[in-house]
Amino acid sequence: MRIALAQMNPTVGDIAGNCRKAIEFLDRAKAQAAQVVVFPELSIIGYPPKDLLLKPQFIDDNLRGLQSIAERVRDIDAIVGYAERNADPVGRPLHNAVALLRDGRIVSRHFKTLLPTYDVFDESRYFEPGPDNEKQNLVKLGDVVGGLSICEDLWNDERLIPYRLYHRNPIADLHDAGAQIMINTSASPFVVGKHEFRLKLFSSQVRQYGQPLIYVNQVGGNDELIFDGNSAVFDGAGNVIAQARDFEEDLIVVDVPLGGGSRAATSGPMNRASEGIESIYRALILGLRDYVRKCGFKSVVVGLSGGIDSALTAALAVAALGNDKVVGVAMPGRFSSDHSLADARTLAANLGIEFHVVPINDLHAAYEQTLAPAFAGKPPDVTEENLQARIRGALLMAFSNKFGHLLLTTGNKSEIAVGYCTLYGDMCGGLAVISDVPKTTIWQLARWMNQQSSKPLIPQSSIDKIPSAELRPNQTDQDSLPPYDVLDAILYRYVEEEKGVAEIISEGFDRDTVIRVIRLIDRSEYKRRQSAPGLKVTSRAFGFGRRMPIAQNYEQVSPKHGEPGAK
Amino acid sequence: MRIALAQMNPTVGDIAGNCRKAIEFLDRAKAQAAQVVVFPELSIIGYPPKDLLLKPQFIDDNLRGLQSIAERVRDIDAIVGYAERNADPVGRPLHNAVALLRDGRIVSRHFKTLLPTYDVFDESRYFEPGPDNEKQNLVKLGDVVGGLSICEDLWNDERLIPYRLYHRNPIADLHDAGAQIMINTSASPFVVGKHEFRLKLFSSQVRQYGQPLIYVNQVGGNDELIFDGNSAVFDGAGNVIAQARDFEEDLIVVDVPLGGGSRAATSGPMNRASEGIESIYRALILGLRDYVRKCGFKSVVVGLSGGIDSALTAALAVAALGNDKVVGVAMPGRFSSDHSLADARTLAANLGIEFHVVPINDLHAAYEQTLAPAFAGKPPDVTEENLQARIRGALLMAFSNKFGHLLLTTGNKSEIAVGYCTLYGDMCGGLAVISDVPKTTIWQLARWMNQQSSKPLIPQSSIDKIPSAELRPNQTDQDSLPPYDVLDAILYRYVEEEKGVAEIISEGFDRDTVIRVIRLIDRSEYKRRQSAPGLKVTSRAFGFGRRMPIAQNYEQVSPKHGEPGAK
Repeated sequence: MRIALAQMNPTVGDIAGNCRKAIEFLDRAKAQAAQVVVFPELSIIGYPPKDLLLKPQFIDDNLRGLQSIAERVRDIDAIVGYAERNADPVGRPLHNAVALLRDGRIVSRHFKTLLPTYDVFDESRYFEPGPDNEKQNLVKLGDVVGGLSICEDLWNDERLIPYRLYHRNPIADLHDAGAQIMINTSASPFVVGKHEFRLKLFSSQVRQYGQPLIYVNQVGGNDELIFDGNSAVFDGAGNVIAQARDFEEDLIVVDVPLGGGSRAATSGPMNRASEGIESIYRALILGLRDYVRKCGFKSVVVGLSGGIDSALTAALAVAALGNDKVVGVAMPGRFSSDHSLADARTLAANLGIEFHVVPINDLHAAYEQTLAPAFAGKPPDVTEENLQARIRGALLMAFSNKFGHLLLTTGNKSEIAVGYCTLYGDMCGGLAVISDVPKTTIWQLARWMNQQSSKPLIPQSSIDKIPSAELRPNQTDQDSLPPYDVLDAILYRYVEEEKGVAEIISEGFDRDTVIRVIRLIDRSEYKRRQSAPGLKVTSRAFGFGRRMPIAQNYEQVSPKHGEPGAK
Repeated sequence: MRIALAQMNPTVGDIAGNCRKAIEFLDRAKAQAAQVVVFPELSIIGYPPKDLLLKPQFIDDNLRGLQSIAERVRDIDAIVGYAERNADPVGRPLHNAVALLRDGRIVSRHFKTLLPTYDVFDESRYFEPGPDNEKQNLVKLGDVVGGLSICEDLWNDERLIPYRLYHRNPIADLHDAGAQIMINTSASPFVVGKHEFRLKLFSSQVRQYGQPLIYVNQVGGNDELIFDGNSAVFDGAGNVIAQARDFEEDLIVVDVPLGGGSRAATSGPMNRASEGIESIYRALILGLRDYVRKCGFKSVVVGLSGGIDSALTAALAVAALGNDKVVGVAMPGRFSSDHSLADARTLAANLGIEFHVVPINDLHAAYEQTLAPAFAGKPPDVTEENLQARIRGALLMAFSNKFGHLLLTTGNKSEIAVGYCTLYGDMCGGLAVISDVPKTTIWQLARWMNQQSSKPLIPQSSIDKIPSAELRPNQTDQDSLPPYDVLDAILYRYVEEEKGVAEIISEGFDRDTVIRVIRLIDRSEYKRRQSAPGLKVTSRAFGFGRRMPIAQNYEQVSPKHGEPGAK
């Protein structure tokens, strides 16, 4: 059975553009004599559409888009994702749906059963699950009975997933109902290490039911989320027999052997999936490029401090957009070291980008003078440190406004976690490129990029120097924070693993350090609420997938909660 | 039957503090010989706790808190809201629960059936609905069978609510199962006009089942949400026989007649619920006061432009906190009118607040000079306008940092909708007090406050003047925007009612104006993503209850979508 996997990159809400793209993929699949072409989840509207789904006109437009694709379908079957109205007047008004298109019309409609409503997902806000009868998700494709499922439907595997959110198991039900081949349309966002887990999970499902699986994932960046593609075909023994490219659009056409057991070493293109640091790199490049493009920008501006974070951000921007689309601005101040400007200049030269030096000393003095009457008798404190960051933020925004560049903000996950950043200062920007990358991973990424590059990229001194915000004399990050390897280890346990104070201390971390870090994280929520959207690469990013109250007073670190370390 | 309604104001996450408060209410109820005291939804942890619920330690602490209250319960029954673990290993890990406490122990546990997952609500993210058997929510209170429900459980009334989200109707089921009195614990946030609707809805429910209803609502501000209290008792004929105060803590003790039909004109305190403009005023005061208090601030700072928005914000702050807790800063610039500074000064004098004048001309010139080399040959544009707003933002943040004031941001809903505001400029601040109040309502509120005041408050010229940002010569808002009555009417239909372009035009609005306004709203999403939390008073506020993608391209205004106005 010859199936095409249409791994496309839709723009959220761009129904006309997404339909045009789908028709192009359809024509290419037909040209390669595919019997069926399969598109990702909600392919007509792009994932995640969020509250666009609440607009009745948007749903109408998406249904019209589906119809317009159906009219182009001849001599091939197409399985296309869209939003369908719930025919039952009771319940949420929509289904997350796929339609089978054939001979110019919509043959049948099929609904997602399991609706993720955790982390970045909000599907119960919009969708009603499909009826408790998986027969409705069986389709006849030539002589073969296909079992259709959508993304999460494939993830309810109690052997591999430590929690079970759903009582229903649509894949088991499809098997029992007589499916001979499983087809899953997905919009599964990237998290480092997730594709390796997907392969394990899907392979386990396939082996359990002895049927081949077609997995078609969306690709592309949509706001915070990056979809890695990595669409794949498994034979009935659980072997991957074809794999699409990661982090780019792809159409692969695969001859899928039916039944259980191994049939072919491969039967279609077999691309290598990137892993680890390389996968983070490729994810960030795609997320950055798509955010710039889908927001209609042509170029970006980055403030270059001479430090590692801004250097990495600029290098990623050049990799994503080209060096003629990136502008660097160094803004030395009273406490900037000589090496800061030198390193920024070297970086700009290495990258071959437009570079400006805009000193802030006059502005710094003007603020001090302007505020002197009101601040008379008050010693300098964090106010004056923040002013320097805010001057730089305003200057960068002026570059953004004047030339139409998108300002990229350069904060890393570690500093955003503990609030080691200035609101309306270094937090200014339309996209936070590395805000979900912990500092220890920042160093790895920078070294990796330098290793991959044939010419000098990020100055070694930017990588090697002791991190400093340079907002007061002889300042270093470690004046205020524990060493980054300790900070990142605590951060991982607290934010990604939701571990409590006692649990983290019991793993051998210093009690006071744990309490201090967790207090800093909790108390910085107000800053993060106003931060730019940031590209998600870990299992729990700040932003949409972590929804914390600001005015709260959960005092989790008092000894009464039974910490082992309490005296 | 004598029941106490404990309308308390919890702080989210402050389990120890909330439990202490609950015990105080319990003791007061006992002193008035109540047989039962009823607390609001999730009263131990405060509503909405958001992702604090994902922390296992937080759930443990809340269970320990419940136990600590139970141990204090003697000679009275208490019904207390908390989060319970789901005993079924499959499904979401928690229930939104109430416990019946008696004689020092937890007698029984009862779970919410209908979980709102729309607008600002995310309950399916955390909770599993209670089992499909309302008998589990019956409790024996003395000789009377009480039917327990939680907030949304009472809202599934197809006669009054135009959509039905749920198949189950727990209130009908409780009635059928033999309940003699309905007890509903709520955390129902304020929206202007909502309490009038609640009275109608609850009264209709009560009449249908012929049973009295006890409705206990949370009060207080928690981030964006303001809970109005307004707890009430209905007799079996649907008459309100007792009503707690709105917008403040209250404990009312009511002798509730059993059975259907009218029994008593009143049987407990009957407070007047404020409506319309007065209710918005009281909501904003409470929301502002609680945000300041619960975040640990003592005072606030407001930039005073001489215009109506900042004047209203400052006047609200004085009403909420007292004039010794509010600081006003006027920052006249090159394009400020003489009346701007004069009006700001008059306002500060009227309010009796600390007042500073910090001119921005030197800073404005310093930015121009600093940027001159990079901007050579470029004509002035919005860049220079934004710079002035950003200078003011940085100065106000310096006041905030130096003196520990919370900065209040003063933007109204109309300008935030269309992006007529500067990111990192006038959008700076920790709380957006009037960001959900449309400009036409701003004027009403200002006039109403002046009418209520015995002494001059907001200068009449601030109310009467033509709105202007004063960022370029002779600028007025109406250079860029339609008149505010038209803008607000379109905004209401598009944002609150989710109407489409064609539908709004068909109501008689000018086609080009509708398209222009909607484009402005859609394209300003990136600004709103970084805005301060804003107090919600309408049915759809920007922020957590309206989740829009940024990098999207929904082109809803092209003629192909069948607008009647298309040529």
